[in-house]
Amino acid sequence: MIIVMRAGATRAEIDRVVERVESLRLRPHVIVGTERTVVAVVGDERDAAMSGFETLPGVASVMPILAPYKVASREVQAEPTVVRAGSLVVGGPAIGVIAGPCSVESGEQIVATARAVKAAGATALRGGAFKPRTSPYSFQGLKEQGLELLALARAETGLAVVTEVVAPEDVPLVARHADVLQVGARNMQNYRLLEAVGRCDVPVLLKRGPAATLEELLLAAEYVLDGGNRQVMLCERGIRTFETHTRFTLPLATVPWLHARTHLPVVVDPSHGTGHASLVGSMSAAAVAAGADGLIIEVHPDPKAATSDGGQTLDFAAFEKTMQVCRRVAAALDRSIG
Amino acid sequence: MIIVMRAGATRAEIDRVVERVESLRLRPHVIVGTERTVVAVVGDERDAAMSGFETLPGVASVMPILAPYKVASREVQAEPTVVRAGSLVVGGPAIGVIAGPCSVESGEQIVATARAVKAAGATALRGGAFKPRTSPYSFQGLKEQGLELLALARAETGLAVVTEVVAPEDVPLVARHADVLQVGARNMQNYRLLEAVGRCDVPVLLKRGPAATLEELLLAAEYVLDGGNRQVMLCERGIRTFETHTRFTLPLATVPWLHARTHLPVVVDPSHGTGHASLVGSMSAAAVAAGADGLIIEVHPDPKAATSDGGQTLDFAAFEKTMQVCRRVAAALDRSIG
Amino acid sequence: MIIVMRAGATRAEIDRVVERVESLRLRPHVIVGTERTVVAVVGDERDAAMSGFETLPGVASVMPILAPYKVASREVQAEPTVVRAGSLVVGGPAIGVIAGPCSVESGEQIVATARAVKAAGATALRGGAFKPRTSPYSFQGLKEQGLELLALARAETGLAVVTEVVAPEDVPLVARHADVLQVGARNMQNYRLLEAVGRCDVPVLLKRGPAATLEELLLAAEYVLDGGNRQVMLCERGIRTFETHTRFTLPLATVPWLHARTHLPVVVDPSHGTGHASLVGSMSAAAVAAGADGLIIEVHPDPKAATSDGGQTLDFAAFEKTMQVCRRVAAALDRSIG
Amino acid sequence: MIIVMRAGATRAEIDRVVERVESLRLRPHVIVGTERTVVAVVGDERDAAMSGFETLPGVASVMPILAPYKVASREVQAEPTVVRAGSLVVGGPAIGVIAGPCSVESGEQIVATARAVKAAGATALRGGAFKPRTSPYSFQGLKEQGLELLALARAETGLAVVTEVVAPEDVPLVARHADVLQVGARNMQNYRLLEAVGRCDVPVLLKRGPAATLEELLLAAEYVLDGGNRQVMLCERGIRTFETHTRFTLPLATVPWLHARTHLPVVVDPSHGTGHASLVGSMSAAAVAAGADGLIIEVHPDPKAATSDGGQTLDFAAFEKTMQVCRRVAAALDRSIG
Repeated sequence: MIIVMRAGATRAEIDRVVERVESLRLRPHVIVGTERTVVAVVGDERDAAMSGFETLPGVASVMPILAPYKVASREVQAEPTVVRAGSLVVGGPAIGVIAGPCSVESGEQIVATARAVKAAGATALRGGAFKPRTSPYSFQGLKEQGLELLALARAETGLAVVTEVVAPEDVPLVARHADVLQVGARNMQNYRLLEAVGRCDVPVLLKRGPAATLEELLLAAEYVLDGGNRQVMLCERGIRTFETHTRFTLPLATVPWLHARTHLPVVVDPSHGTGHASLVGSMSAAAVAAGADGLIIEVHPDPKAATSDGGQTLDFAAFEKTMQVCRRVAAALDRSIG
Repeated sequence: MIIVMRAGATRAEIDRVVERVESLRLRPHVIVGTERTVVAVVGDERDAAMSGFETLPGVASVMPILAPYKVASREVQAEPTVVRAGSLVVGGPAIGVIAGPCSVESGEQIVATARAVKAAGATALRGGAFKPRTSPYSFQGLKEQGLELLALARAETGLAVVTEVVAPEDVPLVARHADVLQVGARNMQNYRLLEAVGRCDVPVLLKRGPAATLEELLLAAEYVLDGGNRQVMLCERGIRTFETHTRFTLPLATVPWLHARTHLPVVVDPSHGTGHASLVGSMSAAAVAAGADGLIIEVHPDPKAATSDGGQTLDFAAFEKTMQVCRRVAAALDRSIG
Repeated sequence: MIIVMRAGATRAEIDRVVERVESLRLRPHVIVGTERTVVAVVGDERDAAMSGFETLPGVASVMPILAPYKVASREVQAEPTVVRAGSLVVGGPAIGVIAGPCSVESGEQIVATARAVKAAGATALRGGAFKPRTSPYSFQGLKEQGLELLALARAETGLAVVTEVVAPEDVPLVARHADVLQVGARNMQNYRLLEAVGRCDVPVLLKRGPAATLEELLLAAEYVLDGGNRQVMLCERGIRTFETHTRFTLPLATVPWLHARTHLPVVVDPSHGTGHASLVGSMSAAAVAAGADGLIIEVHPDPKAATSDGGQTLDFAAFEKTMQVCRRVAAALDRSIG
Repeated sequence: MIIVMRAGATRAEIDRVVERVESLRLRPHVIVGTERTVVAVVGDERDAAMSGFETLPGVASVMPILAPYKVASREVQAEPTVVRAGSLVVGGPAIGVIAGPCSVESGEQIVATARAVKAAGATALRGGAFKPRTSPYSFQGLKEQGLELLALARAETGLAVVTEVVAPEDVPLVARHADVLQVGARNMQNYRLLEAVGRCDVPVLLKRGPAATLEELLLAAEYVLDGGNRQVMLCERGIRTFETHTRFTLPLATVPWLHARTHLPVVVDPSHGTGHASLVGSMSAAAVAAGADGLIIEVHPDPKAATSDGGQTLDFAAFEKTMQVCRRVAAALDRSIG
């Protein structure tokens, strides 16, 4: 940690900072600059309550140095984590593709979709049974019945099932039917939920919150890892910015940035990341080119009739075309899909 | 809802849109413009899955007209809701002030703070017992013991207690000790939690998520209201923007905008909204001038030693000074504090 | 400047950083931490091309310590700058109020407005003659004729004239008719224009760009100050965020933050900052409570007929009411209007 | 344009809106909904001053329907514009690559860079002679001498020269030496500059401002097109968001979105879009996969010694590797580089 003193900070003010650093059993280095004095603090700044320093007289600002996450860090584990959940493998040379409808609506719908996305090259099926919805008046999902339909589609196709869990008390139920537990963007900082999925042994897909920094995303992952569950995929699904022509802004630089700092694999969601079916194909290809380890894409037999998110959902033909392009881009980077 | 067709949309494409509108038992009005045709849809657009329209051929964009919230709306209830929780009244002519530490740390700390903030004019005590923290390695709160210390401080001072609840299963426990249940910014879209506080009869302070639109905030309130609990305060605590000199950006225009659209009272949190103790005084006064019905301010006997959020916490003297200024600004607007 | 090395940076990598620091005639301090080594650099980091450090092998990140602005800084001049331009004084105990239409449209319009805003307490008249417009098809202002009408309104009322200048070559012309040269938000980083207004002796109102950090605003001011013109007012007029219910997001914490770092006075523009006439009154009062030294407000005899920005413009009655409230809030803070 | 009335708007209020629409020679359609009345306005809403409607009593909101740009629109010109500037062709099947240093520093530097980037496959040379810099104390470019060095490098290699012009009065000078005039992000809404480049016959590279919507970008292009210059390339170079791990956030969905709405080609700048050399390679490949018509990349013989932007600049080896990957991705999409 670096504590920057104000220009003109007094000797007594500097001494008081030094004293407080020492009282936390850390080591201070005072560096007198031409315009400012800074106090460099040696020791594990994550162990102490550091936020008080900035209220000390004479202190201008406080800058942390250590990344606050540990287990998620490449410094702790150099080799990439490969997440395996039945037919889905994410983090190796092949790119996993999770596809399916926003919401499970019926057995017919989910089985037909599972067959179509499998035929096009998807390696897992997504589908929402418990749906967190912005409005209390929107369709909230088929819940347990939806889970059963997902399990049926898995039985029919062999595709691993990825579905969202929205509350700690649902974890055992969802874990019984699903191969991957998705923690949605709205719940990225629902710590009870993170702790609950951290205690079970089913792989987790953790979505970035739309206002979360990547450091906060890694700290959310840290909750899961710290609980004992090391099978975590991170998912970029877009952030909230001033742009209105897309539902969210999809920042693909997330992929190489995370790869340099964490061993966890990175999945991209171009459906939520754009909000418009017409942009999903291009952004899927771009995500693959950026180095994504996986994609999660919304697909429905008849998007205009979908109970949710129809505007960003591909039909079977558009998904198949998207997969063809992604396969070619992956090959250009010596990777494959599947 | 207005469905805007692309320039050059065919007659068949327009007919298909009209057909689908009718199939949803809504009434279409086709308006042929000089460059575009639009289809205005009459009926309750909130009842149907509308998102599919934008995937229909020939459709350029879809614009909703009705606000998606109902019970929270001024159109449903014209007179302001007054929330009453013991010593705290928010929504009437007097401005309620909730003050106290980020985290409850000890009986001595919380009782001393309660006495000091009461003397300065606060009408409720805040204090975190269950602390949602970005890092799993940070202090997570005293939990049930913290609740008991808050109850003790209430017994000593008569101040109503405001404290955060982070999970549905904790609602009964927290409701037993607290006068107001705070739903934190990270949990604004934790719908299970919203439903849980909606089912109990303790007033709720609902904080805006840092990436939430005001419409999403009102829809989150709608979950609580729809559950039967009508004692809801909305809280602006800052949004995430590109600004880095403050922890969040505090948009006070929220206050008059909400007042025009909802009968629920609006509280402002200048502590989280700025992140720096030195900015809290000015922004408290500004919030009062903007018409806020309440303030929530972090106060600690010794901010630099606080276990969390020390940098944005006032000491007793700074809080007293802030209250003096706020009282004068309130009086200038024919309001009062307390 | 602090150069943070990666965990596991080699001795050779550290040496190379040290060498380069020395080659720039700065002094390096190497601090070996428990997990990281940092190199603290002593000397004026603003004089050198520092951005290359982060590409050196083993370097994790580079953190500047010194604020990059100088002349604008409170460290260079402790007492506040008072800007004086005829009837307008900004930076002293009284709050200056600049009011008038977005665009000058006619002599009748501008003179009537000048009289009305003066009667209500404004101390300067605003009005656009050269209008930078987002679309080439929008009304671009009356140009020189507009300047002459502004001068006429000044002759009639004695109010100082504030008007925008959009190009270096126009500075002499505009300076001949105006008392304050406004540099608009779109031109905050038009350095030729900043240099041109820096070379003349007419006070400047410099508006913050909607994506500019406060540091960038101060550096833009530094261009003007560095040119020799010390009569600079900074203006917060809102930033671009994800919020859509207001035209921009108006962050009033700008006011106390700037006051702590610069001696230049701070003006707030609640018209552009909100984009809606119905929010201007509350946000004017809030700006005064936040400590603003001045306000700039759009007023028009008949907003619905205005050639630009009608939606955010007050009519005379609304402006008068706004001024009454602002006067009371100012008095509560021992300040006055005018 | 759609004018949405408040719930409970009176007949008289609706009549007044209708009257005003008619007074603007537009045609109103009144549609009475179940909860709201809306007035759909038929006619060219771009020709009138529409902003006043929202201040009329009873009006809740006003929604435009027509895109405000015309000449830039695909509706006006269906086939893509191909921009040709010597060795650089952008907008056809081949992807143009513009590479070179942030600033021209010396003849040796620029000629060596030109040779290296040409060998690696670049089709144009970039280099700043007039440098807009955030701080007045930073290196401001070699100016005219820089232009001459660029012309020298062109003579040596045959590469077209792309360089920034920052003021209208410099346009003739820069146009004499350069093949493409770059309008930088800070000047995207410097309308005098847009008009000046619109009047000359040298192709223009127009960069998106960091807070500009795509509609604003297209309107800025419209200024150039409207002036008579139809050779315009749009450039996405990143927007300002809350993300701090990258210098800007690079939203590649810009590419397919613009392609659907405008015939102008789209170039991506992964150097400014990320701010870190280590992210440029991945994001270049991603931009190609997203469908970009061109790339502009910062390359320098020795980035750590660059006078500006060293941290985001590739050395020759890194650029060559980036080009290899981009070529393979382009081929996967049946495109080529060059």
